[in-house]
Amino acid sequence: MDAIPATPPAGLAQLYGTVRATSRHLAGPLSDADATAQSMPDASPAKWHLAHTTWFFETMVLRPNLAGYAAFDDTFNFLFNSYYETLGARQPRPRRGMLTRPSLDSVMAYRAHVDRAMAELLRRDLPPGLWELVELGCHHEQQHQELLLTDILHLFAQNPLCPAYSEAPPAMAAGAPRETQYHSFDGGIVEIGHAGGGFAFDCEGPRHRVLVEPFRLADRLVTNGEWMQFVADGGYRDPLLWLSAGWATVQAQGWDAPLYWRQHDGAWHSMTLHGLQPVRPDDPVTHISYFEADAFASWAGKRLPGEAEWEHAARDLAPDAAPALRPRAASGGAGLRQMFGEVWQWTRSPFTPYPRFRPAEGAVGEYNGKFMCGQFVLRGSSCATPEGHSRPTYRNFFPPDARWQFSGLRLAEDA
Amino acid sequence: MDAIPATPPAGLAQLYGTVRATSRHLAGPLSDADATAQSMPDASPAKWHLAHTTWFFETMVLRPNLAGYAAFDDTFNFLFNSYYETLGARQPRPRRGMLTRPSLDSVMAYRAHVDRAMAELLRRDLPPGLWELVELGCHHEQQHQELLLTDILHLFAQNPLCPAYSEAPPAMAAGAPRETQYHSFDGGIVEIGHAGGGFAFDCEGPRHRVLVEPFRLADRLVTNGEWMQFVADGGYRDPLLWLSAGWATVQAQGWDAPLYWRQHDGAWHSMTLHGLQPVRPDDPVTHISYFEADAFASWAGKRLPGEAEWEHAARDLAPDAAPALRPRAASGGAGLRQMFGEVWQWTRSPFTPYPRFRPAEGAVGEYNGKFMCGQFVLRGSSCATPEGHSRPTYRNFFPPDARWQFSGLRLAEDA
Amino acid sequence: MDAIPATPPAGLAQLYGTVRATSRHLAGPLSDADATAQSMPDASPAKWHLAHTTWFFETMVLRPNLAGYAAFDDTFNFLFNSYYETLGARQPRPRRGMLTRPSLDSVMAYRAHVDRAMAELLRRDLPPGLWELVELGCHHEQQHQELLLTDILHLFAQNPLCPAYSEAPPAMAAGAPRETQYHSFDGGIVEIGHAGGGFAFDCEGPRHRVLVEPFRLADRLVTNGEWMQFVADGGYRDPLLWLSAGWATVQAQGWDAPLYWRQHDGAWHSMTLHGLQPVRPDDPVTHISYFEADAFASWAGKRLPGEAEWEHAARDLAPDAAPALRPRAASGGAGLRQMFGEVWQWTRSPFTPYPRFRPAEGAVGEYNGKFMCGQFVLRGSSCATPEGHSRPTYRNFFPPDARWQFSGLRLAEDA
Amino acid sequence: MDAIPATPPAGLAQLYGTVRATSRHLAGPLSDADATAQSMPDASPAKWHLAHTTWFFETMVLRPNLAGYAAFDDTFNFLFNSYYETLGARQPRPRRGMLTRPSLDSVMAYRAHVDRAMAELLRRDLPPGLWELVELGCHHEQQHQELLLTDILHLFAQNPLCPAYSEAPPAMAAGAPRETQYHSFDGGIVEIGHAGGGFAFDCEGPRHRVLVEPFRLADRLVTNGEWMQFVADGGYRDPLLWLSAGWATVQAQGWDAPLYWRQHDGAWHSMTLHGLQPVRPDDPVTHISYFEADAFASWAGKRLPGEAEWEHAARDLAPDAAPALRPRAASGGAGLRQMFGEVWQWTRSPFTPYPRFRPAEGAVGEYNGKFMCGQFVLRGSSCATPEGHSRPTYRNFFPPDARWQFSGLRLAEDA
Repeated sequence: MDAIPATPPAGLAQLYGTVRATSRHLAGPLSDADATAQSMPDASPAKWHLAHTTWFFETMVLRPNLAGYAAFDDTFNFLFNSYYETLGARQPRPRRGMLTRPSLDSVMAYRAHVDRAMAELLRRDLPPGLWELVELGCHHEQQHQELLLTDILHLFAQNPLCPAYSEAPPAMAAGAPRETQYHSFDGGIVEIGHAGGGFAFDCEGPRHRVLVEPFRLADRLVTNGEWMQFVADGGYRDPLLWLSAGWATVQAQGWDAPLYWRQHDGAWHSMTLHGLQPVRPDDPVTHISYFEADAFASWAGKRLPGEAEWEHAARDLAPDAAPALRPRAASGGAGLRQMFGEVWQWTRSPFTPYPRFRPAEGAVGEYNGKFMCGQFVLRGSSCATPEGHSRPTYRNFFPPDARWQFSGLRLAEDA
Repeated sequence: MDAIPATPPAGLAQLYGTVRATSRHLAGPLSDADATAQSMPDASPAKWHLAHTTWFFETMVLRPNLAGYAAFDDTFNFLFNSYYETLGARQPRPRRGMLTRPSLDSVMAYRAHVDRAMAELLRRDLPPGLWELVELGCHHEQQHQELLLTDILHLFAQNPLCPAYSEAPPAMAAGAPRETQYHSFDGGIVEIGHAGGGFAFDCEGPRHRVLVEPFRLADRLVTNGEWMQFVADGGYRDPLLWLSAGWATVQAQGWDAPLYWRQHDGAWHSMTLHGLQPVRPDDPVTHISYFEADAFASWAGKRLPGEAEWEHAARDLAPDAAPALRPRAASGGAGLRQMFGEVWQWTRSPFTPYPRFRPAEGAVGEYNGKFMCGQFVLRGSSCATPEGHSRPTYRNFFPPDARWQFSGLRLAEDA
Repeated sequence: MDAIPATPPAGLAQLYGTVRATSRHLAGPLSDADATAQSMPDASPAKWHLAHTTWFFETMVLRPNLAGYAAFDDTFNFLFNSYYETLGARQPRPRRGMLTRPSLDSVMAYRAHVDRAMAELLRRDLPPGLWELVELGCHHEQQHQELLLTDILHLFAQNPLCPAYSEAPPAMAAGAPRETQYHSFDGGIVEIGHAGGGFAFDCEGPRHRVLVEPFRLADRLVTNGEWMQFVADGGYRDPLLWLSAGWATVQAQGWDAPLYWRQHDGAWHSMTLHGLQPVRPDDPVTHISYFEADAFASWAGKRLPGEAEWEHAARDLAPDAAPALRPRAASGGAGLRQMFGEVWQWTRSPFTPYPRFRPAEGAVGEYNGKFMCGQFVLRGSSCATPEGHSRPTYRNFFPPDARWQFSGLRLAEDA
Repeated sequence: MDAIPATPPAGLAQLYGTVRATSRHLAGPLSDADATAQSMPDASPAKWHLAHTTWFFETMVLRPNLAGYAAFDDTFNFLFNSYYETLGARQPRPRRGMLTRPSLDSVMAYRAHVDRAMAELLRRDLPPGLWELVELGCHHEQQHQELLLTDILHLFAQNPLCPAYSEAPPAMAAGAPRETQYHSFDGGIVEIGHAGGGFAFDCEGPRHRVLVEPFRLADRLVTNGEWMQFVADGGYRDPLLWLSAGWATVQAQGWDAPLYWRQHDGAWHSMTLHGLQPVRPDDPVTHISYFEADAFASWAGKRLPGEAEWEHAARDLAPDAAPALRPRAASGGAGLRQMFGEVWQWTRSPFTPYPRFRPAEGAVGEYNGKFMCGQFVLRGSSCATPEGHSRPTYRNFFPPDARWQFSGLRLAEDA
């Protein structure tokens, strides 16, 4: 969770204010019960996301640095700590949904209490270590904003009423779908990783050299329509397409389509943040696991890109803007499209440390490094990623069977 | 769930009104989140108890019998059906806590909607089968009132904040504890079971003859103080005291005290509906399993009573009054005390059908009979049993490892 | 495991010799590997049965009573102890199949060693407690002889080669099947339980009075042909026929026929001790659980007998002779047939202590009493029960989902 | 399982003969029961290893290529197929221990039958695809030879008698232990992977360029003595040393030492192929997981090598000779020692495809590629690896919690 050192951001107070307001905004449509329930051990209650991100500022920033700071409630330290083994006991992760108290209102009061103290602190001249910690806390909260949305979607998908988190926007006239174009890239030694200048998480560095062989990368994401062909062609029933662990999962879980797809009146529908909606063929497929992405690529005679290939191809792209809550069909135009802002893209790269990577000392170091086992890297960003949180060096990661994120794929091949 | 035929109660509308008002009262202290969470598969959310009991009246009584009745919401039929396999699909029991919608407010509106229709129906002259069904619905709801309390206690016990469902009443001066007296009963052929006249569940009949050998029954419940001696004497560590399945459970679950006991500042405390409270030595022990009750009896050189013994001894007793939410120490005086209104009392009788028992036809018959395997009978009633719901013929039943009910024990021995 | 006191048997040495020779005979068809494998936690390797019964004589009889007795191998005490929690650590039950050493030959040498020492002991005048212990050890070994056969059958049924434990005898011409006759019995107070005179296990006593209502009992067992009708009529798909726990088991395990039935070339076949054989319609159905027996009885509009009813009806019957390894069709003739020697018959009686039952003191008391929870009584005996081990008071017991014993059913009804 | 094309080996028949004789030799100390039991789902019975490797030659080589070949037993095709989803049903892996028939003798007869037919075939001039298949079958069998030993060790370790697979050789006088020296390697673009010329598995190629940063590699393996220091220093109790998934495993499994270590009379002992033996401080530590290797490296302030680093360092080394069954202390002398023949060495490289890797077509392609998820690469070879089976390009792989292989570690660091 430690950031790579950088110069202080122009408006740290402004960043803090924007991030915190965004969280409040995301909580708007949720009832106390919505914000309390936990739909599976890997997901967390919205209330927990709202409180845990606040706990970070209270515990890491305010307590050691703001003289006279009075904690909102001492029990919150136990309730809203997450994975920091060094910081004492904590509520077991799978039992977070048992915390019907404190209420959502109390958690919002907690947020306000901490915001007032942070405002006081941010009026001062902060030493480098401290402003970096505040900046880290802001990006940490942005991560949880995306999880809040994916976790709420998972929760609502368990409810036969298929409630909508927000109203669906009016449908747009979609352009005619276009054939995928493959962009060619030369091989050679390239540099990837965060170079300093702007925020990045620890695992994005150090910047380093990588040897890349010539490759080609699809200019758009794989669509729902293409996925329907995969399903219709028996993709979920042919063991030769799958990794061994993937096939075992398909059989044990009975997978036969993306996580939220279901047949309804003879047509594919999907649970979305706008409730149950018909699957639109030109939209990018989402809520698929690494296992499924890999099997699809085998079926298509292609492969997934490596993370170095992806980053190299994206190096000069400017990430997209505000989150749309549902992935959208590719626009027209040349160039690589949909690299950011639609769905995270599985790469074939296991999540491993970059050369000379070292976790930070102390509690904040208990973060990305300890997950470098059994996970695959996803690149880009999604329709649930907060504005300002995307960048070409970003390394997201999940286990190969995870499906509740906005995860899809882009194909690649050797040149 | 079918009742033994009886003459119509004087004030069925009054019974209905009282029962429904009691449920509303019980929901009073609960937030939307409190009423939604499910702490384990065997427990249900309070909202579910409130809605399911209402669903019973809507589905069994109003839909077939009140012309022009408009259902509150058709989806509720799916959401709040319980175990009726004949009545179509239902929300899987362990996933009831996922229903953050409808909200507690909606469920209360559902209750009001059904109450208005029931009031209309109850103004009429009902045929026998129908008023019996309404009466059954009332007693069914009373069962769920007790479960609502035990389930909320279980939920709150998962929360490190140990919230209180209600304020603890002022402590009363307790009389000096008294030695247990054993009352002797002659053996012979006795009659047990419901004889008609007043409501009873199907499994309480038919009334029939039983051969009982001479026995003696303790005049009060086993206390917390006595249980502390059992714990201190290594009761939870001696396999010879336990049934084989009980010992396996002790080891697998790490049991070393009643469910809600925990050491705090060097003394036993217990989670209660009034929050975490010191264990009072003279109060009856509660939240123990059949396995523990049986092991304690072995340790004490006694045994648990059979259900026929218990009922025979209780035949002329009038059940106690309003529920106290926490079991209380025995009062002075002669006679069998604490038979009702403190804790349910494990008997050594497996829950089996009485001679010539037959479940009712149709959906309401899918009730007690199908649980006649793997459960033990408890007799009496508890501090969470609604007023008017106790009677000497009542047969409660739970699996031998269940601990979240207000369950304790009374000792017996052969004469 | 303690016996009800009785006068010394005329030929204890002869009993010992016969029992021990029978075990050797049963081991005859088994290879070292056959005798070592364990097919499920509830079954034991044949080698274990052969050694554990020998361990009983060594530990309970020889070590304390034969001066100068030299144990065969001290490690066997750990390896072949079973459930005696008081006698120290033991090989975990589900891991018994890991004991590839000692070999079957070593175990047979262990048996010979103990037999020599027992012969020496049995030449003397034994005090009452001791000859009772030897007698108990013989009946204990007979119990394990039946289990050895049922466990081997279960093991061989896991093998796609369907090996036969023994050759099938030549088929006999079967008489025409006959309609079931129901024998009527008056109600009243009857006596059941072991009365002394001959061996019995502790749980068969004390003899005591029971009140029985008038009932009728089928004169023969339910047949495979009748079971095929139950299957064809959707018996395994109708939840209303089943106990709640039974229905859950049917769905979780995918039960649709008795344990060893499988369709082969369009006809039902069954794994037997003679390998895979066509199901013969007139033979008694076997390898069914209590859940299935109870569902069948519901489907047939009957019920299972209570154990007191069964014993009362069988009180004057002389058990059948040598075990046949496979249940046989009912012979002609009047009277209750097939009470012994074909399949154990599920009763609707949970396994509970008789009035005034007390387990024996010490290690041998750790036996039947500790299983008096969650099990149902079966009466009669089976085609795998050793000669001399059947009697009207015998109480066998298994959990309601157990199917690997030779268990079937006989119907009853209220008169 | 497909090999990288190469010129035909001089003596294919000789290779075949040697490999098959080695398997027979390895089976020598095993009883029928030893060869049948399966100690966990990841291990296989020895009999299965002996039969499955034979099945490969029968199914892949003889049936399609030797006219008139008569299969030994058609049922063996079902029994001894392994993971080839394309080749029909198979005995479920965790139930392989149920196959008490065919006996070990039958399996050896099966081997002889196939060997006779292979001898006939090998006298002919084989087309390239076929001799490659035979060569592949030989290396496939060598893999199973190592597994046979590790699986037998795991089985014997479940037995409280701690049986020895073979006699321990006389102890050798060990030289004084020496400090670890770190050898330095320059960075740059290096080539790794199989280049043709000699056998290799598919995943060892294609040979390709890798960019390596300067690094240093320990000249010997980590020893038992060093591991004892790690244990004594609380290495198994400090979450900061562990990957998140590793720490969860430590807690769930109660790990506090390598797999087979146990305290005995106040000193560490270890189960070995020679039975229970004192742990020798100078021998390499073995039977540790990736999680433990990684935690140890963190504790030591070092890291594990990457597989490219390891292969680059080993490129000119000649693998050691005959297997010793137990790892041995490092000899004196300069240079990298213990690279082969003692314990497999965990690298920090997840098992992923080399650039332009493609699995073979058809059934033999269902091999290494499908395991490229969730596994880590180990390099070198072990004291159980058959002679002739080690090479610098060899990529062994196991999940990060696997401990039953002869797996240890060698430290590295950035230069």
